[in-house]
Amino acid sequence: MSLSEFETISRYFRRPKLGFQREGVVLGIGDDGAVVQPPAGASISMSMDLLVEGIHFPSKANGYGVGSRSLAVNLSDLAAMAAQPLCFTLGLTLNRLEDSWLQEFSSGLAEMAEKFNCPLVGGDLTRGPMGSPAVIAIQVHGIHPDSDPVLRSMAKVGDGIFTTGTLGNGAAALHAMGLDSHLGELDQSVKARLSKAHSDFLNNAYFKPQPRIDFAVAASHYMTACIDVSDGLIGDLGHILGASKVGAAVMIDKIPYSDAVLNLYDEQTRQQAALFGGDDYELCFTADKKNEAALLALAAQQSLSIQKIGEITGTQELRLLDSTGDIVQIEGKPYQHFV
Amino acid sequence: MSLSEFETISRYFRRPKLGFQREGVVLGIGDDGAVVQPPAGASISMSMDLLVEGIHFPSKANGYGVGSRSLAVNLSDLAAMAAQPLCFTLGLTLNRLEDSWLQEFSSGLAEMAEKFNCPLVGGDLTRGPMGSPAVIAIQVHGIHPDSDPVLRSMAKVGDGIFTTGTLGNGAAALHAMGLDSHLGELDQSVKARLSKAHSDFLNNAYFKPQPRIDFAVAASHYMTACIDVSDGLIGDLGHILGASKVGAAVMIDKIPYSDAVLNLYDEQTRQQAALFGGDDYELCFTADKKNEAALLALAAQQSLSIQKIGEITGTQELRLLDSTGDIVQIEGKPYQHFV
Repeated sequence: MSLSEFETISRYFRRPKLGFQREGVVLGIGDDGAVVQPPAGASISMSMDLLVEGIHFPSKANGYGVGSRSLAVNLSDLAAMAAQPLCFTLGLTLNRLEDSWLQEFSSGLAEMAEKFNCPLVGGDLTRGPMGSPAVIAIQVHGIHPDSDPVLRSMAKVGDGIFTTGTLGNGAAALHAMGLDSHLGELDQSVKARLSKAHSDFLNNAYFKPQPRIDFAVAASHYMTACIDVSDGLIGDLGHILGASKVGAAVMIDKIPYSDAVLNLYDEQTRQQAALFGGDDYELCFTADKKNEAALLALAAQQSLSIQKIGEITGTQELRLLDSTGDIVQIEGKPYQHFV
Repeated sequence: MSLSEFETISRYFRRPKLGFQREGVVLGIGDDGAVVQPPAGASISMSMDLLVEGIHFPSKANGYGVGSRSLAVNLSDLAAMAAQPLCFTLGLTLNRLEDSWLQEFSSGLAEMAEKFNCPLVGGDLTRGPMGSPAVIAIQVHGIHPDSDPVLRSMAKVGDGIFTTGTLGNGAAALHAMGLDSHLGELDQSVKARLSKAHSDFLNNAYFKPQPRIDFAVAASHYMTACIDVSDGLIGDLGHILGASKVGAAVMIDKIPYSDAVLNLYDEQTRQQAALFGGDDYELCFTADKKNEAALLALAAQQSLSIQKIGEITGTQELRLLDSTGDIVQIEGKPYQHFV
């Protein structure tokens, strides 16, 4: 089938479940630009992430998963700023238009858009040359009506270091799908241990990561710094340390893992997944230790687990400690696109 | 050379001429997101355009031209909304990092960013698979402190239809460079007539189109509808007519052309360039005829030419008229990415 750009936008992207009305959005798809109007005095956070076929999602992945993941990983950046989602834009480069893929992709986007009250307001659709990969550019916009954005740069010596949920699921999911990850090739023993339930859990963790918006917005007054774990804990916590000009001591045994990861991997492998794997989209944040109980209570209200994994130090380096307090050396490297 | 994503961003995109401070921008590159804070009550317009190597710019084009063009065509969408540029984000997918290209590209961006006081505040840089084309995603953001955005949907029967500058330069530039355009292959007679001055003019028109921001902001109170001419006058004016549910009578002899286009092409060919060529990034707008003199005076103050080319009608169709008022049929079709 051959649809024009305008017909494609109209058919797949002007759907009521995707381009719905929302307070603060004055004008959506259909003009030279979209128009938003934040509450007086509120600031707007914005973040753009690119997803390239074959690099950030498998070529054979179904459109629904690609759609939900694409918007979720962007919303995770808003969570890291403690912003309330307002709307998103989509730039889509495709070398062909396939009805079934577009239908699934827009439905996957719509699931996340509805869940986080974040309608599609505009963007661009364009053709890539024959054989070129699909490139998905999404920009999300969030508002801060009542509080300031939480930055990476305000962590203080003595603060606790916390993570939400469990780490290592992103790398484990890629590994279990037989794709490139920090965990090497999928061997038969892992494959044999992979139950249907754990396989489904990991697949869901990869294609439908849950941006921790609600927790971040509720807890923002307590957080001193925050980032989402997209490149592995070492790399992402490292950004907080660099921006805040501090160090950290992380208790390696405190890193939280899912049942799936605990069941599939030995200690060394799951540490690789959490520290260097990335693709987890959990939050790593710092807070004064006096607020730990309040944070735990907030998380419990939302049925979310949070875990204190360490402490900010004045050393300007990131130290990993075992349960006896000894420094552990773990080699690996965070994911860097051009290395 | 092999730079990481972070080193590349630091070296080429955190330059003072690109990420400069501007009122209303609270936080630029370096955190999970950028933060802006518009004046109380002001709305924000946003627009995203994608440029794909080999489709929207020639593969062999120098980085400077690609950079200036990429930002300019996006700023032109803000002009079409009568928005004052605030900031932009950049998503860049490259299959390799070349020092000279990145240096030129970021300098080309910086020229437009400085000229329109529109700093780079964030984005993403990612690797495309070997051999894949460069994809540039830019989103621009503009504010409306004193007036509402000018939409496509408010043209009224009896309004005059106006264009800024001259039309057809975009298609002529592509043609003169020997690239795909609506004008067919470059024949020897055109090549022989192409002076250095006209070649430079067309090259400039293509790589440094001038977004009509100043005029649009100054004239926004008079405009009833506005669009920028990116797909050809027929297609773009057609969007105004569709959104406003009106028709138009365009006097074909009133379409303004540059000396270069007048010199290089016969009447029929230049009409093809203006009506169907696109890539001009001039404004096409409508206004009550009683405001024509005021609009002409505003344009004159800015040393910009504007031209009344027709009138909005109640017919719901776009008619082209010759100097005697007879309807002219001109075949062609607007640029559509997937047709």
